Amino acid sequence: MYISDELIDRFIKEDVPYLDLTTLVLGISSQKGTIQFFSREDAVLCGTEEVAKIFNKLNIQVTKTCPSGTLIKKNEIFIEGKGNAEDLHTAWKVSQNILDYSSGIATKTKILVDKASKINPNLHVITTRKVIPGTKDLSIKAVVAGGGFSHRLGLSETVLIFKQHLNFLGGTDELIKILESVKSKVCEKKIIAEVENIDEAIKLCKCGIDGLQFDKIPYDELKKYVDILKNINPSIVILAAGGINESNIEEYAKTGVNAIVTTSVYYAKAIDIGCKITKDIASN
Amino acid sequence: MYISDELIDRFIKEDVPYLDLTTLVLGISSQKGTIQFFSREDAVLCGTEEVAKIFNKLNIQVTKTCPSGTLIKKNEIFIEGKGNAEDLHTAWKVSQNILDYSSGIATKTKILVDKASKINPNLHVITTRKVIPGTKDLSIKAVVAGGGFSHRLGLSETVLIFKQHLNFLGGTDELIKILESVKSKVCEKKIIAEVENIDEAIKLCKCGIDGLQFDKIPYDELKKYVDILKNINPSIVILAAGGINESNIEEYAKTGVNAIVTTSVYYAKAIDIGCKITKDIASN
Amino acid sequence: MYISDELIDRFIKEDVPYLDLTTLVLGISSQKGTIQFFSREDAVLCGTEEVAKIFNKLNIQVTKTCPSGTLIKKNEIFIEGKGNAEDLHTAWKVSQNILDYSSGIATKTKILVDKASKINPNLHVITTRKVIPGTKDLSIKAVVAGGGFSHRLGLSETVLIFKQHLNFLGGTDELIKILESVKSKVCEKKIIAEVENIDEAIKLCKCGIDGLQFDKIPYDELKKYVDILKNINPSIVILAAGGINESNIEEYAKTGVNAIVTTSVYYAKAIDIGCKITKDIASN
Amino acid sequence: MYISDELIDRFIKEDVPYLDLTTLVLGISSQKGTIQFFSREDAVLCGTEEVAKIFNKLNIQVTKTCPSGTLIKKNEIFIEGKGNAEDLHTAWKVSQNILDYSSGIATKTKILVDKASKINPNLHVITTRKVIPGTKDLSIKAVVAGGGFSHRLGLSETVLIFKQHLNFLGGTDELIKILESVKSKVCEKKIIAEVENIDEAIKLCKCGIDGLQFDKIPYDELKKYVDILKNINPSIVILAAGGINESNIEEYAKTGVNAIVTTSVYYAKAIDIGCKITKDIASN
Amino acid sequence: MYISDELIDRFIKEDVPYLDLTTLVLGISSQKGTIQFFSREDAVLCGTEEVAKIFNKLNIQVTKTCPSGTLIKKNEIFIEGKGNAEDLHTAWKVSQNILDYSSGIATKTKILVDKASKINPNLHVITTRKVIPGTKDLSIKAVVAGGGFSHRLGLSETVLIFKQHLNFLGGTDELIKILESVKSKVCEKKIIAEVENIDEAIKLCKCGIDGLQFDKIPYDELKKYVDILKNINPSIVILAAGGINESNIEEYAKTGVNAIVTTSVYYAKAIDIGCKITKDIASN
Amino acid sequence: MYISDELIDRFIKEDVPYLDLTTLVLGISSQKGTIQFFSREDAVLCGTEEVAKIFNKLNIQVTKTCPSGTLIKKNEIFIEGKGNAEDLHTAWKVSQNILDYSSGIATKTKILVDKASKINPNLHVITTRKVIPGTKDLSIKAVVAGGGFSHRLGLSETVLIFKQHLNFLGGTDELIKILESVKSKVCEKKIIAEVENIDEAIKLCKCGIDGLQFDKIPYDELKKYVDILKNINPSIVILAAGGINESNIEEYAKTGVNAIVTTSVYYAKAIDIGCKITKDIASN
Repeated sequence: MYISDELIDRFIKEDVPYLDLTTLVLGISSQKGTIQFFSREDAVLCGTEEVAKIFNKLNIQVTKTCPSGTLIKKNEIFIEGKGNAEDLHTAWKVSQNILDYSSGIATKTKILVDKASKINPNLHVITTRKVIPGTKDLSIKAVVAGGGFSHRLGLSETVLIFKQHLNFLGGTDELIKILESVKSKVCEKKIIAEVENIDEAIKLCKCGIDGLQFDKIPYDELKKYVDILKNINPSIVILAAGGINESNIEEYAKTGVNAIVTTSVYYAKAIDIGCKITKDIASN
Repeated sequence: MYISDELIDRFIKEDVPYLDLTTLVLGISSQKGTIQFFSREDAVLCGTEEVAKIFNKLNIQVTKTCPSGTLIKKNEIFIEGKGNAEDLHTAWKVSQNILDYSSGIATKTKILVDKASKINPNLHVITTRKVIPGTKDLSIKAVVAGGGFSHRLGLSETVLIFKQHLNFLGGTDELIKILESVKSKVCEKKIIAEVENIDEAIKLCKCGIDGLQFDKIPYDELKKYVDILKNINPSIVILAAGGINESNIEEYAKTGVNAIVTTSVYYAKAIDIGCKITKDIASN
Repeated sequence: MYISDELIDRFIKEDVPYLDLTTLVLGISSQKGTIQFFSREDAVLCGTEEVAKIFNKLNIQVTKTCPSGTLIKKNEIFIEGKGNAEDLHTAWKVSQNILDYSSGIATKTKILVDKASKINPNLHVITTRKVIPGTKDLSIKAVVAGGGFSHRLGLSETVLIFKQHLNFLGGTDELIKILESVKSKVCEKKIIAEVENIDEAIKLCKCGIDGLQFDKIPYDELKKYVDILKNINPSIVILAAGGINESNIEEYAKTGVNAIVTTSVYYAKAIDIGCKITKDIASN
Repeated sequence: MYISDELIDRFIKEDVPYLDLTTLVLGISSQKGTIQFFSREDAVLCGTEEVAKIFNKLNIQVTKTCPSGTLIKKNEIFIEGKGNAEDLHTAWKVSQNILDYSSGIATKTKILVDKASKINPNLHVITTRKVIPGTKDLSIKAVVAGGGFSHRLGLSETVLIFKQHLNFLGGTDELIKILESVKSKVCEKKIIAEVENIDEAIKLCKCGIDGLQFDKIPYDELKKYVDILKNINPSIVILAAGGINESNIEEYAKTGVNAIVTTSVYYAKAIDIGCKITKDIASN
Repeated sequence: MYISDELIDRFIKEDVPYLDLTTLVLGISSQKGTIQFFSREDAVLCGTEEVAKIFNKLNIQVTKTCPSGTLIKKNEIFIEGKGNAEDLHTAWKVSQNILDYSSGIATKTKILVDKASKINPNLHVITTRKVIPGTKDLSIKAVVAGGGFSHRLGLSETVLIFKQHLNFLGGTDELIKILESVKSKVCEKKIIAEVENIDEAIKLCKCGIDGLQFDKIPYDELKKYVDILKNINPSIVILAAGGINESNIEEYAKTGVNAIVTTSVYYAKAIDIGCKITKDIASN
Repeated sequence: MYISDELIDRFIKEDVPYLDLTTLVLGISSQKGTIQFFSREDAVLCGTEEVAKIFNKLNIQVTKTCPSGTLIKKNEIFIEGKGNAEDLHTAWKVSQNILDYSSGIATKTKILVDKASKINPNLHVITTRKVIPGTKDLSIKAVVAGGGFSHRLGLSETVLIFKQHLNFLGGTDELIKILESVKSKVCEKKIIAEVENIDEAIKLCKCGIDGLQFDKIPYDELKKYVDILKNINPSIVILAAGGINESNIEEYAKTGVNAIVTTSVYYAKAIDIGCKITKDIASN
């Protein structure tokens, strides 16, 4: 996934608006050294392509790297570069922050995907729009690196009808009246609605809606809903959202839904990435 | 804290690159309505100034708002606006994401600050540079809203000597040789070093370093270190970093350190912000 | 549709990097005047919201405006403002260029939509990704103002399989093998493929693909294809693309396809927008 | 002509905000392949330098390229690259859109330039400020590639007096009073005015204006005007603007004007550029 | 002159990346106060429009302002605003830096213009392209506020032939061979060349060049050159550049050149602008 | 120090929005040549890393370069590149402007640093926040290249209390009351106040303030103040600001202050950098 130069520069400048004052006042700026990143825990790696870009911008030669998506072991060095102390210290923390955060998302996504697909190999783990503002490029890349995908990348290319929309329309019954026309208007897309109870769901299912999203329904209840609805229309897409995470995803996987929608990975615990910076022998 | 128009626009476009397709296909775009945000839990509010800017850009009239830093109660509506359904749906999720994330940080910061200052009113809670890339403006604003501050806003204005710097210098003994000269070079700033053990700490303390940072030292051990060091130089600044959070901050507060440095707030659980969008009566 | 401040500023600076030298050397900069835009032909208006933003940035008071999507008559003044000669001349051409181009797209889109829906009210006119680089926000806004929508806003949220993809996969037969799995992976989206002949189309249709796109098939032949395919799966979505424009859209509408995909509106003839700038009486 | 990294990135992100979902779901992302662009018609090529930049950003190795301005033959491959399927699909359409649009402008400009210079080798074909918003860098590059140039790149470095300026000044007679002073104020530049009739033109010509622009004057009438004015001042520059295109440029060239000003190239028909993407043998 | 929001934000963020820490730690952020700018010397004011924008962005109400170009007296308050201490301190120094620098340019430009026009009211003072990188919008605005203008706003709209160009062409004699053709190619613009001695100048003058620029020629010698050249072609434009400033501009004005080209104003001494910030009575 | 691609592009576009028209109309664009920069005076070089970036963006091969901070001799060529005439002319003036301005700052900074450290090797020369808007990255880089540093890079990471702050607090006595608490709030930073007279200074010194800044105090008087204050607290940091430059810095250095704060370098006379562009032999 392509992340723009402008965003990479923005990340660098967040941490190093001008230079590393410590390196400057210690008088070590032009010494040659090596920077190495490793993980203090097993993880799904993400962000090395961006770190390599940072290295490149700072004249640090990349001497080793592994692609995003790699399963790394504790203490394994997965990216390494050589350059001046000044540049190595400039690269350090911004690189670490990228790796920490995005590998955290990738790793948690992989755990959810693995748990879900063990129950149902065709079950899809997808993420909500509730991304932390300013992180979207990195977050989406990390979700993909972990084997998931985004539920909706934004408001402009998919149709998901919420209660907040129905308030203007006049409720579910009004939606039913125009459903056929809406479907033909966006014939390339599936029409999905979030529903609050099984009655609404049944009505919409009978009228040919393509998909239904249930929010915060306990999994045992949800299982019953799925049975009812798939009985009416076997090809209806059913999404479960709201409070699904590592502790309960297997139960939700058993409900028969087509996909599980989660925000939790965006707030995943960061992977504990370590960074060694050492002076090169014979450097002065 | 001033957040630029460009960043606000970037946040909007992350979620709504063009328009809300759902609103468009339902044909409700120009209906008038009201948007209201409330919290599903008590919280320290953050981000309303940015939401007000979003409202303004989308021609939504702000009819109520509370400033960042306000303590809000569960279900209390803290910002409200009136506009077209199209604009309200465009504003919805990006506003919610801003509020969720930054109120989460502000709330957790406040909890840490309160716990720490109950033990020691002069103890300062400060946050690391390990911010999630792309969120810095919002994160720092939220930390301040919660009563904390950033340990270092970047590499360029403060001096903090890490092992990674000493590797080039030749170790602590070399630092001691040049410490006086470094201090005069940046006479306006305090020179702080991260140390790994009490021996190094004592050496540096005796040589007049302004501050020392300890990383991942158990609090009972740290308490002994503080006693030793403050005995040598009562005005030395001692910082505790590494794994400090709600569960142990009180213990660390009792060690006598001057400040507690934490990353944990950047990964705080989001506050569960709700959003109601309703159609205005007499609107058609 | 929200167009960012940054893009509006970019448009202004394309035409006026510093100031209107002519106004400056004539010494008329601070005189008060009125700017009025009208069309020299009937049209579907687009871009007035952006012109109003330009006026606002240049301290020109908007004294009249009509929203994008309005059907305007020849010589009807649809936006008017009052300000200094310097600001009016700065606003002039960039506003005109926005109005010209986007109203051109909106008007042509409306013509296509009207022609198509007269034959089949449920037929959708959608536009390709072949937008002129740098114009996407404005182009999509204009397409929507004219009653159309974008086929795909980008590569990231829809699935459309081209021959260029199949070259890697090994051809249509390989696609058929994995089709079920692909469908479950992106269960919220329809899977659409571009096909080159009816045999491929039939194979994919039988295997349950959601939609098929035909490129540059003569309409009489296409009609036969549609009959065959809808006979196999009445709910399959069929798109016609390639060389469809005002002269032949009615014939394509009669084929029974669900949507017509066109690039032609992006290259629509600009609407001939006129601009009057006059000195206010009593201004000196 | 240098086009900035930021604009190239903006073009990429218009089409591929995150990644090519189709490539992802087909599981072909990391396969190696070749991308080739060719034209389905003879053309003046433009935009290959920008496509090469896109290739470079996406780690696609450029294996062949021709510079902007090259005359290409139907089916000739003019740029080729090798990379991963994921990157090739990301590069595809944005590259094609750049090539389509800018080669369209370059080709039409060349046709106009050739027609004009066959009649009068010293006749200059120049383009108006009526560029499509957002395309200026690309449009100007394309005009230059086709052998033309921009009439005025913006408002800030040339003087062209319109009726809209004269409305503030009080008309042509007032302009005549200050003309000498205006000329000395911008002594490095020529003072040009747009005139509506021959009487105004004669008055201004007699007073020493450097150039006159006529808008939408039929060519036979314009020829008479040119004779009259060149008789008064042989070195006066006369520009013909308004409705000049391939069908009538030769007639306008015969009028004796110094330059022909046209908007038409900005709305030139795109060149039909084709794109082949194939899998490399031995790639897996 | 319109300066974009993006540039104003960039200026603010250069000085205040997050907030005024001093205001925060003193606990005075939300107190109400007044900010007033005055000059410690007579000056030509510049930059108040930009300061007003900064006030506006920071919710500071503008209670008084004078436009750029105003002649201000020592100690006269020319812009005033009311807001919170936090916002006032954020606005303070960036506003002062804008006013200092641009008023410095405007004032020095005015002095040069006044001196020059006392000798020759038609003599034009114009500035070189040697602007300080990053300041161009502000610098050009200030030059105009002082009554000058830019010699060339960039390389793209004017023709000025330097020795560095002639090195590729083969020298002055080669230029003479193509001069007529070059003139017709850019018939709307004057062709100007920088010359190093009078012999070259005479040759080019005789061949009909529109203007000549002399660099670093002593004024008494230059006067002789002007006489010779104006004798050959009275309408030739002659520019004097290189080392012209307040001390010698009057002598250069007497040489009969048409314009004086100077870099000196870009490095003008800043005007000493003062800033008072006071607490409003009854504010707490 | 890392300067972003975006800023480098902005610098290029300030001078060359599209292309060098002169090179185009002379028909020399594709000839091969060499560009060389040298100084017409001894200087501390700054900006070559940025010029190398410009060369790189324009496909000019860097054939020689010296790093920022190098002491260069008159007429010594310090950076050289090879490329097309079109690209060399695009690079010329923007490169020269960067070198001129930043080498001017670096050179003046070095002179001040050398003068000051001859008197007191531990005396620090630091620069104010009164940077010219838009130049901050380049200015700070140049100050560092000359051996100085910035007093404060912005408002957000250091504490300096001005009268403008005290107006809200209620004056020095109020500050004294809260000083201990402020110090603990920002325990990592030194608290510095600007004072107007020795009485205030003594009061604050006795209360344990970390540093004091004196503005525009004559050096002989200042010397007395320093003696008094260092007698009270030998480790207090004293800064002298206001009107200090090459002519008086040695006198200020003798006062015993810890650092000298100056704005003067930002307005240093530019270094007179020359540029030769020549045609390569055998180029055609």
